[in-house]
Amino acid sequence: MPDARPRRAPMLGIGIDLGGTSARAAVVDGQGRVLSLVKKLHGSAEPVKIADLLATLAAEAVAGAKLVPSDIGAVGVGLAGQIHSGTGVVAVGPNLGWREVPFGKMLAERLSWPCFIMNDLSAAAWGERSVGAGEGQDDVCLVFVGSGVGGGLILGGELYEGSTGVAGEIGHTKVVPDGRLCGCGEHGCLEAYCGGHNLSAQVAEAIAAGRRTSLEPLAAGGRRVTAGEIEKAALEGDALARGLWETCFRYLSVAIANLATVLNPSRLILGGGVLLTSPVLKQRVREEARRLTLAAARGNLKIVDATLGDDSGVVGAALRATSSLAPAAGGAR
Amino acid sequence: MPDARPRRAPMLGIGIDLGGTSARAAVVDGQGRVLSLVKKLHGSAEPVKIADLLATLAAEAVAGAKLVPSDIGAVGVGLAGQIHSGTGVVAVGPNLGWREVPFGKMLAERLSWPCFIMNDLSAAAWGERSVGAGEGQDDVCLVFVGSGVGGGLILGGELYEGSTGVAGEIGHTKVVPDGRLCGCGEHGCLEAYCGGHNLSAQVAEAIAAGRRTSLEPLAAGGRRVTAGEIEKAALEGDALARGLWETCFRYLSVAIANLATVLNPSRLILGGGVLLTSPVLKQRVREEARRLTLAAARGNLKIVDATLGDDSGVVGAALRATSSLAPAAGGAR
Repeated sequence: MPDARPRRAPMLGIGIDLGGTSARAAVVDGQGRVLSLVKKLHGSAEPVKIADLLATLAAEAVAGAKLVPSDIGAVGVGLAGQIHSGTGVVAVGPNLGWREVPFGKMLAERLSWPCFIMNDLSAAAWGERSVGAGEGQDDVCLVFVGSGVGGGLILGGELYEGSTGVAGEIGHTKVVPDGRLCGCGEHGCLEAYCGGHNLSAQVAEAIAAGRRTSLEPLAAGGRRVTAGEIEKAALEGDALARGLWETCFRYLSVAIANLATVLNPSRLILGGGVLLTSPVLKQRVREEARRLTLAAARGNLKIVDATLGDDSGVVGAALRATSSLAPAAGGAR
Repeated sequence: MPDARPRRAPMLGIGIDLGGTSARAAVVDGQGRVLSLVKKLHGSAEPVKIADLLATLAAEAVAGAKLVPSDIGAVGVGLAGQIHSGTGVVAVGPNLGWREVPFGKMLAERLSWPCFIMNDLSAAAWGERSVGAGEGQDDVCLVFVGSGVGGGLILGGELYEGSTGVAGEIGHTKVVPDGRLCGCGEHGCLEAYCGGHNLSAQVAEAIAAGRRTSLEPLAAGGRRVTAGEIEKAALEGDALARGLWETCFRYLSVAIANLATVLNPSRLILGGGVLLTSPVLKQRVREEARRLTLAAARGNLKIVDATLGDDSGVVGAALRATSSLAPAAGGAR
């Protein structure tokens, strides 16, 4: 039977990127274009206050794009953590200190659109796959190395979130069993050696232990040394920086190669602040990860940069929300 | 619209397990029960001769179950290697020395049923998920440690084979970059330390290099020492055996934990000759892999033994073939 539904313009969505200290909301069209963007710091991580804030931001984003509420199909919210996307419950939201918060329900009580809560890197992976570096590909792995290390998986054309919504946590694969303590409370995770917070923490720890390094002035007064500063010092021959940088290179390359060997994606997308500010590291990781990937999985593999930049969160969340809606909502119109 | 098709008994399929030296064919019902089983050594790995042999075996299996060809819905063939399941082309079949063999087409020319060619561990994963240790679960990882090390993935209820059909190759994830040479031609693969062939090869190499070990009589005349013999010697205090056994334990545990952390399955199924004959190793790996899995992914995870045993290949291939057929073939009846 032919589809009798009228053809119409791609649905507009609101994408919200909920971080540990601020939130960004955007109206996004079906091609991933940002039509309006608003951003606010949130003083409190209290779920009710955050829900109120996001409702305000969403309304402002709609007004900012000179639209009315009925132009919008759905709202997607991406945040770091373990999300039960089916129910909208945030099981663990580490940046906000949330545990078992029924945030989807709280938001739906304040908004007139269907609301979808999702992991931020699942949203980013969906966005990159829809309109970014993974466009048109069915098997895409995204690895972001920022203050933390995480990933998102598109497998067989679908977002893959695992049996409890935490798939893609490459940052917590173990690279040194019982090694360095990670922010997750476990030991020896990839993130404990390669995440931005841990890189700067390792500099501070070494200085406190009496190691001499050219990074010392940059770490004065408790300032966090950045990954870019570590790369620069490493390339200038600083021994401490070189050690941290090489360790980061080695563990990241193997973890990414092993992900590609097991999942055989056609695109592996790299992003996040550590890689963005460390171009030499990124290039070396790209080459080494490729070399260490099983030949049979390497032939079809492209390791590429994320292209949506700072917008990947809002764009991905909006596109994921509207795609979650279709075709049911489309049929109801 | 209600489904107007008549309800009928689950379809029967033929499952074929094509190994390096022999082939087994079975008629399997929709509950995974083996109704008949035939087995033959194949003298030649020539594709045409293998296709002839499998056609004969399939006919014998049908006759052995006192059935007629029209009782059978489809044929599934599982073999080790890189298979393009969509086209039935065996890109790489290492045990047979095949490269780019259009085996699905060759077999279809000889048989009156639809033929599906697949990776042997994808077949096993599908079988275990359908009627074995992963029954009723949507997210299942299977890891077999036998002469080689491999895996199969059921993700989101579907068999996941990756962008070129080689997903699941955990045996070729790198545990020691640029380490021991693996049978795949690359270095430092998990299989190079934990696969049965490599375990016995390491014993032989150590003896040739003058290491003293209680395993020496078992390795006389070029005999391959088995994993079970290595475990026994390790537990009796033999230093060489203990070293190999501990290395195998360490690398396997981390690789399995990292697979579970990234994919968040509800079942991780262990099998294969090395684990079957090394019960202490298997128990230690199970406990250590669980301990090293990210807590958020651990809660829902059960690490269990495969239950289909030697039949997993034929059962899985048959069930996969008949499921690949439905619902199109069902609708045509």
